[in-house]
Amino acid sequence: MKIYAVIMAGGIGSRFWPRSKSKKPKQLLKIFGNNTLIQNTVARLNGLVENDHIFVITNKNQVKQIKKQIPHIPEENIIAEPFGKNTAACIGLGAVLVEHRDKDAVMLTLPADHLILDVQSFQNTLKKAAEFAYETKGLVTIGITPTRPETGYGYIQYIDEPLRENIYKVRTFAEKPNLSTAKRFLQSGDFLWNSGMFIWRVDTIKSEIKIHLPDLYEGLVELSKSVGKDDFDETLTNVYGQLRNISIDYGVMEKSKNVYLTKADFNWSDVGSWEEVYQLSDKDDSGNAKVGKVYTDKTYSSYIYSPKKFTALIGVENLIVINTKNALLVCNRENAQDVKKVVDYLKMHKETDLL
Amino acid sequence: MKIYAVIMAGGIGSRFWPRSKSKKPKQLLKIFGNNTLIQNTVARLNGLVENDHIFVITNKNQVKQIKKQIPHIPEENIIAEPFGKNTAACIGLGAVLVEHRDKDAVMLTLPADHLILDVQSFQNTLKKAAEFAYETKGLVTIGITPTRPETGYGYIQYIDEPLRENIYKVRTFAEKPNLSTAKRFLQSGDFLWNSGMFIWRVDTIKSEIKIHLPDLYEGLVELSKSVGKDDFDETLTNVYGQLRNISIDYGVMEKSKNVYLTKADFNWSDVGSWEEVYQLSDKDDSGNAKVGKVYTDKTYSSYIYSPKKFTALIGVENLIVINTKNALLVCNRENAQDVKKVVDYLKMHKETDLL
Repeated sequence: MKIYAVIMAGGIGSRFWPRSKSKKPKQLLKIFGNNTLIQNTVARLNGLVENDHIFVITNKNQVKQIKKQIPHIPEENIIAEPFGKNTAACIGLGAVLVEHRDKDAVMLTLPADHLILDVQSFQNTLKKAAEFAYETKGLVTIGITPTRPETGYGYIQYIDEPLRENIYKVRTFAEKPNLSTAKRFLQSGDFLWNSGMFIWRVDTIKSEIKIHLPDLYEGLVELSKSVGKDDFDETLTNVYGQLRNISIDYGVMEKSKNVYLTKADFNWSDVGSWEEVYQLSDKDDSGNAKVGKVYTDKTYSSYIYSPKKFTALIGVENLIVINTKNALLVCNRENAQDVKKVVDYLKMHKETDLL
Repeated sequence: MKIYAVIMAGGIGSRFWPRSKSKKPKQLLKIFGNNTLIQNTVARLNGLVENDHIFVITNKNQVKQIKKQIPHIPEENIIAEPFGKNTAACIGLGAVLVEHRDKDAVMLTLPADHLILDVQSFQNTLKKAAEFAYETKGLVTIGITPTRPETGYGYIQYIDEPLRENIYKVRTFAEKPNLSTAKRFLQSGDFLWNSGMFIWRVDTIKSEIKIHLPDLYEGLVELSKSVGKDDFDETLTNVYGQLRNISIDYGVMEKSKNVYLTKADFNWSDVGSWEEVYQLSDKDDSGNAKVGKVYTDKTYSSYIYSPKKFTALIGVENLIVINTKNALLVCNRENAQDVKKVVDYLKMHKETDLL
């Protein structure tokens, strides 16, 4: 069994403005410690997947930075989508690339911008899921045991009778719920968060795409013919222009009867907002997390990022303060989700320097 | 009657950090509109005092900037104190300079960094006080009718029987009170705020200094001999080194029996903190005062100064946000007085670039 990984690195992370920008989105930032999220994502595969077996699918804005950040991954494995077309197309492209190397490969599909610290558990989970997927030709997803009625994630309902150790049949997928539904999910005990991490054989996902998204499949067949040839970029552009913009969850996972789930036994975060960064950061006795020279007086439970400029906070609490070269954000922690509205505002006012 | 003005411009304004710095304190900043506070102070005298009759007493850090900001005042009228020695010495020096021009002059003593918008009333008040001081050889101070139990100002108690229109005998001076005393002052009705603006004949203040601060007087006599001569700077340094560090209020006004008061019938502010700047600024419908490109969402009653960098505020209220080239301040409006503690901290840590 050969394992390949396809890392999806196309996100723009507008909730991390003003740190995230179109040329430097969330996965390219050092949100925690000295490495970027994508560097950590690649490092987490060390020992499980060979560097040469790791593909990264991104876009034109980011490809240069990504090559620079993970120089040990072969350049030709880092591919820029000509257009953003949601996860089904991205995964289809990944499958075509992996298949060209090994028709029997197991393909891990992983977002570039999640936080997982327990590498050993992560690799164990993936390895067992890969063995199951290799043997049974099932689609396997990783479910996260929910800790709060989160409305920002999709959920997966599973049948609580293990088929083998930590492998369950999926009953249904549920899109991002409203709060009362999310609370019901949490109480029910058989709903998990959809992590967006998938494990399958490359031939399995291609068959499933053929059944549920035949038009996408046709595009992938077209694309397959030019992999490794001079006209690949041109074909990619032509094919991608015609692909449907649909997620793999909606396009395949919700429709297939062949879907399984393994529960993560590691801590996981999709690092979805500055609030989550605050939650995940080390804090001082006053509950403040600081990056840079920061003076605090009567200040509590705040996240302050100002690496280049001295910052003084007095008499405030529950704030997120992000001070970059170009812009300043001062936000109540409760309003962390509204940061993307600033990005919308800047787009509308064509303030491209700030995006 | 010839009127001269001595503008005291030695303050460092540490409560306006990070905008105010040792080389650019409060009076040299454009806190409101397009002119600095000292430019407005000089402009307020237009028509009442000739430019050639205006002296500015400052220090070495600021003298260059001040000459640049008020180029219509003769350079030789702008004097740098060799050491900061509180208001008695500064006023003594001013008296020596004025006396050298006109022994019978009336001398207005004015802080450089107050906000007074009603120029007509201001000039009327000064003019009447000057006439009274010229005729009676009294020391006249301007009292401000208090609007709140402010603990940051000195108070003046007066005898509520006018000697002539808007001229009262002063009963006593009171230093900055605690809150309960300030409340009592406010209720009593015969306590006014001490504005720090004084009107007197130059010969009167010299006589009063001679009586109450004889050592200072001796220094001034020494200094008088070298005014207009080559050795003035050298003498100034020698004399100043030996002068007592004492305020005119404590050294003369509280001790003299010859003190009168005129009530200001104009709005006045000593612009003592960012909170006061907020109060005095124009605000939008949400009560926010903004300088620079500022995006606000669910944000109320805040003052934001960020002229060079786009700033977004979300879900916050009662904040002061000051974003300069070198530093950032985020402060609850209630804690505006604590800004000077940041300056103390920076001094202690020898962060001179930030001071």
